[in-house]
Amino acid sequence: MKLITFLSDFGSNSSYVSQMKGAALSITDASIIDITHDISSHNIREGAFVLRTSVPYFPSGTVNVAVVDPGVGTERKGIVITTPSQILVGPDNGLLIPAARFLGKFTVYEITNTKLMLHFVSYTFHGRDVFSPVAAHILNGTLFEHIGPIISKYVDLNFGKFEINKSSAIGKIIYIDNFGNIITNIDGLEFCNVSDFGKNVTFFIGKKTYRAQFVKSYDFVKKGEVLLTVGSSNYLEISINQENAAKKLGVKPDDDIKILY
Amino acid sequence: MKLITFLSDFGSNSSYVSQMKGAALSITDASIIDITHDISSHNIREGAFVLRTSVPYFPSGTVNVAVVDPGVGTERKGIVITTPSQILVGPDNGLLIPAARFLGKFTVYEITNTKLMLHFVSYTFHGRDVFSPVAAHILNGTLFEHIGPIISKYVDLNFGKFEINKSSAIGKIIYIDNFGNIITNIDGLEFCNVSDFGKNVTFFIGKKTYRAQFVKSYDFVKKGEVLLTVGSSNYLEISINQENAAKKLGVKPDDDIKILY
Amino acid sequence: MKLITFLSDFGSNSSYVSQMKGAALSITDASIIDITHDISSHNIREGAFVLRTSVPYFPSGTVNVAVVDPGVGTERKGIVITTPSQILVGPDNGLLIPAARFLGKFTVYEITNTKLMLHFVSYTFHGRDVFSPVAAHILNGTLFEHIGPIISKYVDLNFGKFEINKSSAIGKIIYIDNFGNIITNIDGLEFCNVSDFGKNVTFFIGKKTYRAQFVKSYDFVKKGEVLLTVGSSNYLEISINQENAAKKLGVKPDDDIKILY
Repeated sequence: MKLITFLSDFGSNSSYVSQMKGAALSITDASIIDITHDISSHNIREGAFVLRTSVPYFPSGTVNVAVVDPGVGTERKGIVITTPSQILVGPDNGLLIPAARFLGKFTVYEITNTKLMLHFVSYTFHGRDVFSPVAAHILNGTLFEHIGPIISKYVDLNFGKFEINKSSAIGKIIYIDNFGNIITNIDGLEFCNVSDFGKNVTFFIGKKTYRAQFVKSYDFVKKGEVLLTVGSSNYLEISINQENAAKKLGVKPDDDIKILY
Repeated sequence: MKLITFLSDFGSNSSYVSQMKGAALSITDASIIDITHDISSHNIREGAFVLRTSVPYFPSGTVNVAVVDPGVGTERKGIVITTPSQILVGPDNGLLIPAARFLGKFTVYEITNTKLMLHFVSYTFHGRDVFSPVAAHILNGTLFEHIGPIISKYVDLNFGKFEINKSSAIGKIIYIDNFGNIITNIDGLEFCNVSDFGKNVTFFIGKKTYRAQFVKSYDFVKKGEVLLTVGSSNYLEISINQENAAKKLGVKPDDDIKILY
Repeated sequence: MKLITFLSDFGSNSSYVSQMKGAALSITDASIIDITHDISSHNIREGAFVLRTSVPYFPSGTVNVAVVDPGVGTERKGIVITTPSQILVGPDNGLLIPAARFLGKFTVYEITNTKLMLHFVSYTFHGRDVFSPVAAHILNGTLFEHIGPIISKYVDLNFGKFEINKSSAIGKIIYIDNFGNIITNIDGLEFCNVSDFGKNVTFFIGKKTYRAQFVKSYDFVKKGEVLLTVGSSNYLEISINQENAAKKLGVKPDDDIKILY
């Protein structure tokens, strides 16, 4: 099964998404899965996080095309990243790196072979004219060495450092999901080594202090109560049972968080 | 053709949807169709309505995964429902029942076989770790008796009772669609037995009274006029031609309605 | 590869989209691609633009179903349009015409053969009951002459006239994309004959006057600066680097624009 996934900030109301898909399907007969096209405009970090948390669940051989690309048409490179299991295609602006790093040892190719692109490459839409056709050609068996040279310098990106100590942890907010769950960059499985489910913790975001129970899942506290849990991608997560925690607590991505336990 | 449909309240901007799809595609090579991922957060009744109105149109053998699941990680069961034509997979909270009942005589299996789940089952995301893999295994031929025991007690859900009399009908609002059409739980085909297209009716929602023509379709009245029609899923529906009736009339789900004719 | 695309104003939160897809998949085993379901309610012109800019990228033989259909259930015809490469199916209200015209010499068939429709055709949802089944039957090999008669009268639609002179161009705004880019109906490739990248232009929308640089892509100007570029569908486009131009300039579809250079 040939599989391409797409992620972008194009919005599901535009024709850009379908243009990318059409370009791929004109070259290969892959199955197409949308990761999302509702990344906030130009928000590379948000796109990188959603890509990083999605790719682990796709089968080996999947080609993932990601396009959050404010630098399109300038000197920024287009790249293909190979990993032990999957392939990533997109702009060289950090978007692909957290996913690549998670998948294991990776190699970065610069896309220079114009034969793998659409005949006419626009200045403003490389998702359609470069990345999607390259992904399709890869699924058709194009050798990686035909894409372009391996490069060792590329734009890096990570979600910041976190620290877990005996009685406190510090980190930052990296994502707010559709339910208003507040996802931190703190490793939830490591956190389980220093705290037990059922314990109460205190946490600080901005100038505010909150109390919450550390629980296995949302419904272990009453509706409307704040809780701390290990989210499904193993990041530590603050939530309110059946309510929107981010809105209620006034929290947004990049805010710092400190937890005492 | 192996077909899985997905319905959830995850929002199309999250990575949760693609994680579920990736989990399924790592097990089977099905075609995937989204019903929607924009059900209002935790709104089981709305999810049940959208699922109920979608499934009749899918081919026999389709496996439908639905996840509106505020009780994830607690004692609530995961279930598979078999019907004469299709299969439903999701939480035991009523979400699947109206669809199951519409499809005919059904049997409910509790999901207990951990071999059909992902290796590591999170506490907060059974859509990805349980329901989607189970659906994929079913498409691969797993026997229903290997899922778990048949159960006779499950959480039921319906859209409330309605009454159609000689000169009046009562019911409630169950759904507002994207156009602002107001969909009631009153059976439109039964209503056709007591009223004719072209007749005027009076209806009451909350403390307000409205006049409307009962017509075959929206454009039978002038732009901006209130109308009553039989919607495409055979529920009686209040609409304003080319305008948003729900916003203009201030109507919302669960409001009571009485119609005089 | 059998391919059906869908475009509508149904909204991705409704069950209408999946009902259309289910109806098609009950007849044929096609791959399904969404163009979008977020066209503004009843906005035929917007739907026509998104369809027109999407279809060029799909492979030959693709059947495109488009449904923005305020006149459903009235006398308006349902049509199939054949072109040298692809097929279009939808209401006879102009929605399909710009795409058809772009694809080349086309023929319009009125859909009259009820054997190609669902058994029970509702008055309000021909997307599901007529257009989607007809598209599926076409992919299964139904001959065009079995759809219904060829008609020479159909509802036309275009995006208005534009003029490019030695030192000025006039046209109108036809679309605002998700980034807030303002897309005009002025042909970008023709405009390149009268202006060079790097030059400054003055443009007028409503009573306001703006200065902008004509550049190859967004990031050729500083963040927050207004620019003029040739968009990826070759229409002339006004943008602000990494900001929402339409919101900031207060521009909306149908506004007139004049450019001096």
